[in-house]
Amino acid sequence: MQLIEHLNWRYAVKRMTGAKVPEEKVQHILEATRLSASSVGLQPYKIIVVSDEETKRKLSPLGMNQPQLLESSHILVFAAQENITAQHIEDYIALQMKIKNAPAENFQAYKETISNHLLSRTADANFNWAARQAYIALGTAIIAAAEQKVDATPMEGFNPAGFDEILGLHQLGLKSVALLVLGYRDEANDFLANAPKVRKDLKDLIVRFDAA
Amino acid sequence: MQLIEHLNWRYAVKRMTGAKVPEEKVQHILEATRLSASSVGLQPYKIIVVSDEETKRKLSPLGMNQPQLLESSHILVFAAQENITAQHIEDYIALQMKIKNAPAENFQAYKETISNHLLSRTADANFNWAARQAYIALGTAIIAAAEQKVDATPMEGFNPAGFDEILGLHQLGLKSVALLVLGYRDEANDFLANAPKVRKDLKDLIVRFDAA
Repeated sequence: MQLIEHLNWRYAVKRMTGAKVPEEKVQHILEATRLSASSVGLQPYKIIVVSDEETKRKLSPLGMNQPQLLESSHILVFAAQENITAQHIEDYIALQMKIKNAPAENFQAYKETISNHLLSRTADANFNWAARQAYIALGTAIIAAAEQKVDATPMEGFNPAGFDEILGLHQLGLKSVALLVLGYRDEANDFLANAPKVRKDLKDLIVRFDAA
Repeated sequence: MQLIEHLNWRYAVKRMTGAKVPEEKVQHILEATRLSASSVGLQPYKIIVVSDEETKRKLSPLGMNQPQLLESSHILVFAAQENITAQHIEDYIALQMKIKNAPAENFQAYKETISNHLLSRTADANFNWAARQAYIALGTAIIAAAEQKVDATPMEGFNPAGFDEILGLHQLGLKSVALLVLGYRDEANDFLANAPKVRKDLKDLIVRFDAA
């Protein structure tokens, strides 16, 4: 099955059945998401995976009690780094050295370039940048779920500060930016289940500069 | 072929051959990208497709003369809306009415809710939000290209204001936020062509709240 079919199969499910997504499918979705591209390669975010019902019950009112939160199998919370620190860059260079089995000197110039760039920006600029990278991963996770025939509802309608408190994200230097609620569509009760997908025509989305 | 294989096949290509990507593959990538999810469904961005060599030559120095820009087949410029206006919401509701063949009154409450939310925010907040939505689309486009065995290098290292001026984006109410350079890898000259992919281990990317 092809990507366009997966994208047409999926939609932002409003009601879920409560059925559990098998752990192997969750792992598949996380593994694909882990492979997402990010600027500089820093992956400046974490993904919080919530399957515990008690934690879900605490989060639900902070997500406007949208029914999917409690009807879900897993809630993925995409949380971006509040800032980029020298330690983050050290860790990234150490990862490069380990995977490429190469000495620190090979990365010295690169490290200086990215440090000058990232460490001179405000925390706010770095957070907004980190959030954008998390949204690339969100885009991947949406597709990975569809490939597994797992429904996935992206959500921004929640109280990030409240989520951060319950999940202890501030202590991890993170702020939640988006949710992806995983589960299975309840077709009988979801008014969107058989609605056509609403997207702009290509002509309204694309501007072309082709040779005359 | 599965998503994870596509993600492992791709990398941020540094040197391209100059070979052209067939128009049908470009269309496939754009169609998949068009189907991306966005918050509220507004798709608050456009994608500028540049294949014209003269335009590429103008953009190249504004992209730090990174060789892929001139060695590419097409440059996709992801450009987010500078703000969200009442007209954007009108257009979106009109699109809903057309696709769902439903009267305006069906969308009145929804329109008020999203208008109250989006039109009360600063332009800067709306732009940052629009940029995040564009990055979901960027994540989709990266995967769509890989599925077509087209190389695609995401780039943030460019001068957005310069790109905006050359492409006339300010007049369209847009600001460029990221590039996706399409083409074919030049394995002989690309130092990254055979390098292993560097990604955090899952344990360093994921935090789990599972039932005790």
